[in-house]
Amino acid sequence: MDARGFCDGPWWYEEAHGNERHGLRYIRRLDEVTSEYQTIEVYEAPRGRFLTLDGLMMLTSWDEYIYHEMLVHVPMCSVQKPRRVLIIGGGDCGCLREVLKHPVEQVVQCEIDPAMTEVCRRWFPWVEKSIEDPRVLLISDDGAAYVRDCNLFDVVLVDSTDPIGEGAKLFGREFYDNVRYQALAPGGIMAAQTESPAQHPEVFREIYGELRSVFPEARPYLGNVPSYPGGLWSWAVHRKDNVVNEIRGRYYSNDIHRAAFTLPTFVQDLLDK
Amino acid sequence: MDARGFCDGPWWYEEAHGNERHGLRYIRRLDEVTSEYQTIEVYEAPRGRFLTLDGLMMLTSWDEYIYHEMLVHVPMCSVQKPRRVLIIGGGDCGCLREVLKHPVEQVVQCEIDPAMTEVCRRWFPWVEKSIEDPRVLLISDDGAAYVRDCNLFDVVLVDSTDPIGEGAKLFGREFYDNVRYQALAPGGIMAAQTESPAQHPEVFREIYGELRSVFPEARPYLGNVPSYPGGLWSWAVHRKDNVVNEIRGRYYSNDIHRAAFTLPTFVQDLLDK
Repeated sequence: MDARGFCDGPWWYEEAHGNERHGLRYIRRLDEVTSEYQTIEVYEAPRGRFLTLDGLMMLTSWDEYIYHEMLVHVPMCSVQKPRRVLIIGGGDCGCLREVLKHPVEQVVQCEIDPAMTEVCRRWFPWVEKSIEDPRVLLISDDGAAYVRDCNLFDVVLVDSTDPIGEGAKLFGREFYDNVRYQALAPGGIMAAQTESPAQHPEVFREIYGELRSVFPEARPYLGNVPSYPGGLWSWAVHRKDNVVNEIRGRYYSNDIHRAAFTLPTFVQDLLDK
Repeated sequence: MDARGFCDGPWWYEEAHGNERHGLRYIRRLDEVTSEYQTIEVYEAPRGRFLTLDGLMMLTSWDEYIYHEMLVHVPMCSVQKPRRVLIIGGGDCGCLREVLKHPVEQVVQCEIDPAMTEVCRRWFPWVEKSIEDPRVLLISDDGAAYVRDCNLFDVVLVDSTDPIGEGAKLFGREFYDNVRYQALAPGGIMAAQTESPAQHPEVFREIYGELRSVFPEARPYLGNVPSYPGGLWSWAVHRKDNVVNEIRGRYYSNDIHRAAFTLPTFVQDLLDK
């Protein structure tokens, strides 16, 4: 994951492979917090706000809905009446907001860095409302450790950062093993963000190697998040299309759910060859 | 279409709305030609070559195949044995290369600016091979004028630049009218590039207003071209999914063909509301 972020005058840039840059003009930096785990920054831009972790783009207020709707609604619409949901990571509470649109009984969010939720609460309006919902339990813990002991979740959502540093554990066989055999209830489903197959094909291929050693049916599905370099993004579930719940988002629909599993040839080749 | 391109040291940038930049590092500028219509530049970059028109990104050698496969194979696979094909614009010959993968009898390419094909012939290896194919007829003419008099094409492909300056004519009612009632054979099909619904929603909406005044069934389909800002791109045809020919590209497949017509809610809303 060869990427770095930096500011140059009124522009924030993310550079990948030393060859490509995505820049957003910003008006001011609203916040900067260095926690035990990372540096969290929030910027004000003409179209809204955006948040970086260790200088890398995590979300913008104008298109985060796409990433979160796709990570959440694809698994949540694939399970009959999901009642208990576990979010690993997800400190910005975008997943949480989307999960709460379903008639769930409990959502546990296990985020290692409480500073992430604190910062997001100051700058993104959905956070306060989501964490005050009585169905929500916030836990500050390492997700990789948490899944060793918890159990009986109908849906586990892995909303991790990139597979570097602390985030790497959430892409490994041991973690997936604990999700499958400890955290998930029988018939439960896991979804995880799995990076960009266009931007980091070798990382994408590795992730599916690990995933499929535990979930042999794990399949990628795709969407377009304009703020991520190249726009193409992927997530994984380990179930065939079986859309049993209906929800309509600003990006997600049941039709998009089904279509998202159709892969361009170059992505299919990354998995097959 | 508020966009501009510029160089800053070893970086080429395209800036949209004054708020967002996409940058590619370049090693050297290989060519610069100012024709009657536009300034054409070709750059050498670590991953390959890229071409700009009046400073704006037109194609990169590493992902042009996505744009061209989607513009060409969706209509070409929707018609029984297409024999005569007209390309409007398309001076880089990427469409031409893809059309020639089908068993066609004749391809007429009507590009207003012969300098475009000359420059591309120097720097992109597919051009020479494509234009020397005996089935190909190159015409240097205004596509909007050409469609007033030509006829009996099974497929018309509109591979235009953005709807500004000379390119604007290729997005208007009069042009579509001539394509439909003059250029197309009975049962023929047109496909056209229709910009990014995420980057320029108002332009996208206008294009479909014009298109549907002539082709009431015109429908967008989507793909991901990483080198275009935001990645999301759209094209239009005026036929229901009816995939009758098979071809497998590096991006295109018959499954991708069908899935590409499924629109995220925000794109569907641009058409409906």
